[in-house]
Amino acid sequence: MSAPDRTTVAIVGGGPAGLMLAHLLRRHGVDSVVLESRPRERVEARQRAGILEHGTIDALREVGADARMDESGMPHDGFALHVHGERIHVDMQALTGRNVMIWAQTEVVKDLIALRLEQGDPLLFDAEVLAVDKIDGPLSRDGEALVRYRHEGVEHELRADVVVGTDGFHGVARQAIPTEAVRTFERVYGFSWLGILADAEPSSDELIYARHERGFALLSMRSPTVTRAYVQVPNGTDPASWSDEAIWDELEARTALGDGTFALNRGPITDKSVTPMRSYVAEPMRYGRLFLAGDAAHIVPPTGAKGLNLAVADVRVLSAAIAAWCTEGSEDLVDAYSDTALARVWRGEHFSWTMTTTLHVDPDADPFDDRLALAHLRLIAQSEAYRTSIAENYRGVPLAGEQ
Amino acid sequence: MSAPDRTTVAIVGGGPAGLMLAHLLRRHGVDSVVLESRPRERVEARQRAGILEHGTIDALREVGADARMDESGMPHDGFALHVHGERIHVDMQALTGRNVMIWAQTEVVKDLIALRLEQGDPLLFDAEVLAVDKIDGPLSRDGEALVRYRHEGVEHELRADVVVGTDGFHGVARQAIPTEAVRTFERVYGFSWLGILADAEPSSDELIYARHERGFALLSMRSPTVTRAYVQVPNGTDPASWSDEAIWDELEARTALGDGTFALNRGPITDKSVTPMRSYVAEPMRYGRLFLAGDAAHIVPPTGAKGLNLAVADVRVLSAAIAAWCTEGSEDLVDAYSDTALARVWRGEHFSWTMTTTLHVDPDADPFDDRLALAHLRLIAQSEAYRTSIAENYRGVPLAGEQ
Repeated sequence: MSAPDRTTVAIVGGGPAGLMLAHLLRRHGVDSVVLESRPRERVEARQRAGILEHGTIDALREVGADARMDESGMPHDGFALHVHGERIHVDMQALTGRNVMIWAQTEVVKDLIALRLEQGDPLLFDAEVLAVDKIDGPLSRDGEALVRYRHEGVEHELRADVVVGTDGFHGVARQAIPTEAVRTFERVYGFSWLGILADAEPSSDELIYARHERGFALLSMRSPTVTRAYVQVPNGTDPASWSDEAIWDELEARTALGDGTFALNRGPITDKSVTPMRSYVAEPMRYGRLFLAGDAAHIVPPTGAKGLNLAVADVRVLSAAIAAWCTEGSEDLVDAYSDTALARVWRGEHFSWTMTTTLHVDPDADPFDDRLALAHLRLIAQSEAYRTSIAENYRGVPLAGEQ
Repeated sequence: MSAPDRTTVAIVGGGPAGLMLAHLLRRHGVDSVVLESRPRERVEARQRAGILEHGTIDALREVGADARMDESGMPHDGFALHVHGERIHVDMQALTGRNVMIWAQTEVVKDLIALRLEQGDPLLFDAEVLAVDKIDGPLSRDGEALVRYRHEGVEHELRADVVVGTDGFHGVARQAIPTEAVRTFERVYGFSWLGILADAEPSSDELIYARHERGFALLSMRSPTVTRAYVQVPNGTDPASWSDEAIWDELEARTALGDGTFALNRGPITDKSVTPMRSYVAEPMRYGRLFLAGDAAHIVPPTGAKGLNLAVADVRVLSAAIAAWCTEGSEDLVDAYSDTALARVWRGEHFSWTMTTTLHVDPDADPFDDRLALAHLRLIAQSEAYRTSIAENYRGVPLAGEQ
């Protein structure tokens, strides 16, 4: 593909947020260019989230990237908590009338890339963005914003009306905003996740989140034959320091039920990695002609499965706002974007923080914190109303105006 | 009253927990002696809580101390949160089918004292307990436990089968337990409440809990002509350092609504005091022949109005347990007492901590904590399910087995 030099919306970052934004804008008749710094193979290989809210599923349907998901995705009506050997079941479908879909982000990304390329719309890999410039000032249709990037060894300039940063926490887009114009909120946690992929049939039809005195564990899945699982480990842990057997033993110990009714399936481990936990929000999510979406603006620890879903919610709101400006000239929605998105983001941040702090054993926590964590998890069992609110947050809340 | 030297249950502390326990035991035909270190006038003058859950109301009815409450107590179906100028209403009655009663602890105590004295059952004021002894060992009906106390200048010994410590956080009963047999959990907060009583008509039919950038405020009431109100102040604040006008100005600023629809009533302030905040739990709530109930075992910050209600719940469970042992010889309920009570206590601790940390502005909090607090309070508005769980916790949950 030749290097484009003019577009309506320059999208910096070709992960799920940027790709979904490009597709949604296309549905509204708004053209865009997606610049992704890494090669396609790497983007398609990254292991990330795997739980889709209805709003995310709806977006995939809207852009026509739902066929493989419908074929191979696994609808889940609930999940379980194993709290120090006691089982608490959260039946999302019964409590809220909605469920979630197990369908890996990596598969979502493959489908969005394939569709984009099939449509012949601009999506450049190995396109490293060097600078986001001239974002200061009012919106105009004159292509005043400038994105400098290097593609196949050559530097290019892309002029755009609007730039959207979907290039993740470490991306360049957010850095283009003057420091004094952005306020950041952050929490770093004293533990990480050692994650594995294994050729093992999932041990349960539903996800299991476990809290044990030795820490958190999560049993998830990628398919009927592939288990995805996580064990809480200290920050800085080298994945190679854990033998396969030690990982399975630890998963078994942490997910065991006191009545002995749970059994873990083991199998060959095909991938091991360690992920640190972070909560982060940059406010506002707009500066002049630059908008931020997804991890470029906010990070959640993965415990509540909100990261991908918040990113898709951002671009659903943003695509409608940009389209309203492009087609009707109305700036109301673009002006409201940051507040609209942040309301959902902070709800997701609070939920993710709550689940993270109460399901993990924080080495820095005092005994009072530890008891509070247990009291919180027991409240999920004790109160149907509270369990419903957890289910609502987990399966995701509709965008304003949706059912 | 002469100084008694033998009883079934020696109750150390004549606050609401001890008095209610004595009355409930009497209903079961179990005799007790209540020893209160302070003079009656002081016990009856202490300003404390004022919000009764249904379980507490039921206990007052059961023991026949409900007449004045029914005459002058004020049933409240809901309460309001004023969060940075936005109003959130929690309609407890609509959400949970139950309400609460505004009726001051000091009035409850007066009625329980009057009834006890009218019944001619042992209740000694100015009876300072010097030691709780011989509590080690199994329960027996032989009066093996010993309480040494000083009454009217003379030292006495009271032999009992069971001793119950209801003498508050600073009392002697808990101290009688060997250090290695008790585990404590504690949180001290970086702020206090400056509380006032004022001859002012309440500004609202319901309580108002406010969070403002300068801190927490609470508008409560004692009667249709008496306002009870609180302002968050730094720890160590001297109440005399706040003029009446400054207090009203601060209450007005913190409770104001953005749309100007709330107006504060002012009036002469008759009482000012500063209360620090603490969360505390001692586990277990039993050691041999000694049982702890109420503040002797656990403290909550007052934000959730749980302190008095947890104390009454403790003695409802404990009175039934002691009665089952006395009348049927069964130790099942006394053996279960600590676990049964602690399950409710920790739920109350978690609720009180949640409301305290999210309604106050913690001088030690970072900006992320501050945003989380707002996200939590907004969730109360956003989710009816979550609002219901808050209402459930506020109006109180039934004892196991109740409707």
